[in-house]
Amino acid sequence: MTQEFVHVTYLAHGKPGTDWQKKANGIAVGLTVGSWTDLPEARQAAMQKHLGHVVAAEEIGTDRDGLAQARLTVAYPTINFTPDIPALLTSVFGKLSMDGQIRLVDIDLPTEFASRFPGPKYGIDGIRNALNAYDRPLLMSIFKSVIGYDTATIAEHFYQQALGGVDLVKDDEIFFDETYAPFEKRIEACRLAAERAQQETGKFTLYAANLTGPVTEIFDKARRAVDAGANALLLNVLTYGYDVLHRLAADPQITVPIMAHPALAGAMYPSAQYGVAAPVLLGKLMRIAGADFGLYPSAYGSVALERAETLKIAEALRGEQGTLHRAFPVPSAGIHPGLVPFLYEDLGNDQIINAGGGIHGHPQGSAAGGRAFVAAIDAVVNGKTLTEAASNSPELKTSLDLWGNPSGK
Amino acid sequence: MTQEFVHVTYLAHGKPGTDWQKKANGIAVGLTVGSWTDLPEARQAAMQKHLGHVVAAEEIGTDRDGLAQARLTVAYPTINFTPDIPALLTSVFGKLSMDGQIRLVDIDLPTEFASRFPGPKYGIDGIRNALNAYDRPLLMSIFKSVIGYDTATIAEHFYQQALGGVDLVKDDEIFFDETYAPFEKRIEACRLAAERAQQETGKFTLYAANLTGPVTEIFDKARRAVDAGANALLLNVLTYGYDVLHRLAADPQITVPIMAHPALAGAMYPSAQYGVAAPVLLGKLMRIAGADFGLYPSAYGSVALERAETLKIAEALRGEQGTLHRAFPVPSAGIHPGLVPFLYEDLGNDQIINAGGGIHGHPQGSAAGGRAFVAAIDAVVNGKTLTEAASNSPELKTSLDLWGNPSGK
Repeated sequence: MTQEFVHVTYLAHGKPGTDWQKKANGIAVGLTVGSWTDLPEARQAAMQKHLGHVVAAEEIGTDRDGLAQARLTVAYPTINFTPDIPALLTSVFGKLSMDGQIRLVDIDLPTEFASRFPGPKYGIDGIRNALNAYDRPLLMSIFKSVIGYDTATIAEHFYQQALGGVDLVKDDEIFFDETYAPFEKRIEACRLAAERAQQETGKFTLYAANLTGPVTEIFDKARRAVDAGANALLLNVLTYGYDVLHRLAADPQITVPIMAHPALAGAMYPSAQYGVAAPVLLGKLMRIAGADFGLYPSAYGSVALERAETLKIAEALRGEQGTLHRAFPVPSAGIHPGLVPFLYEDLGNDQIINAGGGIHGHPQGSAAGGRAFVAAIDAVVNGKTLTEAASNSPELKTSLDLWGNPSGK
Repeated sequence: MTQEFVHVTYLAHGKPGTDWQKKANGIAVGLTVGSWTDLPEARQAAMQKHLGHVVAAEEIGTDRDGLAQARLTVAYPTINFTPDIPALLTSVFGKLSMDGQIRLVDIDLPTEFASRFPGPKYGIDGIRNALNAYDRPLLMSIFKSVIGYDTATIAEHFYQQALGGVDLVKDDEIFFDETYAPFEKRIEACRLAAERAQQETGKFTLYAANLTGPVTEIFDKARRAVDAGANALLLNVLTYGYDVLHRLAADPQITVPIMAHPALAGAMYPSAQYGVAAPVLLGKLMRIAGADFGLYPSAYGSVALERAETLKIAEALRGEQGTLHRAFPVPSAGIHPGLVPFLYEDLGNDQIINAGGGIHGHPQGSAAGGRAFVAAIDAVVNGKTLTEAASNSPELKTSLDLWGNPSGK
């Protein structure tokens, strides 16, 4: 068997004069065989296949505190891991994450090892087929403020959103207490609401229901959701662990796409010295674990991420990667119709325009808010300006008047 | 039913002149009912019990970039959550973690809500009973470099460690590939090695085996471990998710204590602006979820945390908290016998002295390395200096000569 390696790149800060080659070698040996030069020769021969090595160790600058900055790339033999993210993250950034100023900035998985992860079960093509929606970005609406609401009220909210022409509606990710709106009842009620809206609009709307509860029951719950007619599931991946997403995606009975929410990601990606870069956290790892949709903060909204980072996340989700399906990037938070041209210029058709307040805050209600977005998307896809489109869409005109049209066109 | 609230404290950075009361109120409303002033009065009456509120919003200083710093404490009604950590963290620091410079620094759980979490199944008292070891810190040794080793070799390493008089031996947390040393075989072999050592030393040694593999199989695997004679389990809690620990601790068939490894914690706690403070991450949440042992970087070793933070972690693990059992604090990384007086002064008897290189690196081998620690612990408990103790323990003398005796006594 040829050896395969996972290449992991770190950004490290340290005292001026740090021997980065030595530092990287300490990582490569310490996180694989533990020690090397102390081993007898016969033992070294047996352990060679488990030994990590340094690919690159390059000083790249100095920070404002005078600390030297370096990029270190270490190769870890895949033979040391089982193909799951707890094994991968614990090995390459478990203890190491606590060892001084060090940040995980990239992971490069070799083809054979990556193919042992499920990846998205449906991905962009599968979801487009399910919705019969091609050659344009999809539109998603987020339920707002449903804590304490009952099933009938939630279904009515769903109906209003679906009437506006959105392709998907997702639960609020903080919807946990299901006393008034039990999971399967909610799924059934929203499916009926989708059918009712379809009779008026001709368009079907998927519902991504928030999958919650004990991890020991979540897989059964997901299967029951499918039996109840669910057509998508939402998961708070980082609070449940990537392996929960992985096993949901790998389960042949769970025949619906899975949407990965980024909740808690901000505890890990924003620091310059520590943590895990957003394209790894919300892009690469989400995709191999099986996210069909990857949500992340857009570069334009209320909760913003740097544009370059958002483009890397999108590339990690939907770029070519072996046999893995492509996942939908879903730039989120504070999106209103005036931002659609920016999102479209960045990512083109293969993305989901995702809005909460930008739909529900529309003065004529959620259905009108949805129609405003539909008109905006139709405009950008057909090379029209929002101002042109607004002349035929009073709903869009209202949105632009309220939230602005920052592209100025 | 009287309302109970989880109090969450954040450290926020923002522009000078930020209205912190308004900011905190936005969090309290936004992460509970979504919006409030827009709601009709009848709806407000129904939603009142779900509404969060601001407990405190206090500006505390200015950072070196001229940003204002504030401590914000928000009360969340427990009625909004299910009693599990994914619900709790997603709600109070899910989306919010991505919303600017904000850090979660404390969580205060009310008694009734905390009592719905399992907490440690055995805790300090249960573990002391199992080991028949009282009135002193316990001693743990970490397997080193076992990737690629077979069961017999691992059992021999265990035997050497047990001979040195350690109370527990834990697997290396990066031990995943079990091809050469299958989980249950390894547990059986180490149990036999423990019995063999006991015949010589009169002392029993617990083995904490690393629980790995798919989350869908991990609960069965843990039960099989118990059937195979396991007497403790090690879990990489942060890469698997706290809920895995929670459900293992709540499972009546898993009749052994669980050791929580802090792998990946450094991706979250070290930044001053972002993330989650170590006493929450490695103390409070680990304990309610059911850790019997909580590992964390000590203030003295190679991978260091500030002393004040380590004391808060220990307090969170073992302080009085309703009916929850007390968990063992395990300050770790780079511990050698010369550091025992510092650890003892900080935490007294109810802790575990945990060493890897400080045991295996002993020039006379791991058994001698263990004996050096036993002598050091015996010294501090009996009010003797290490220098005095070393006069009766050549192994301790060797350790102090090699790694130093920083207390100077």
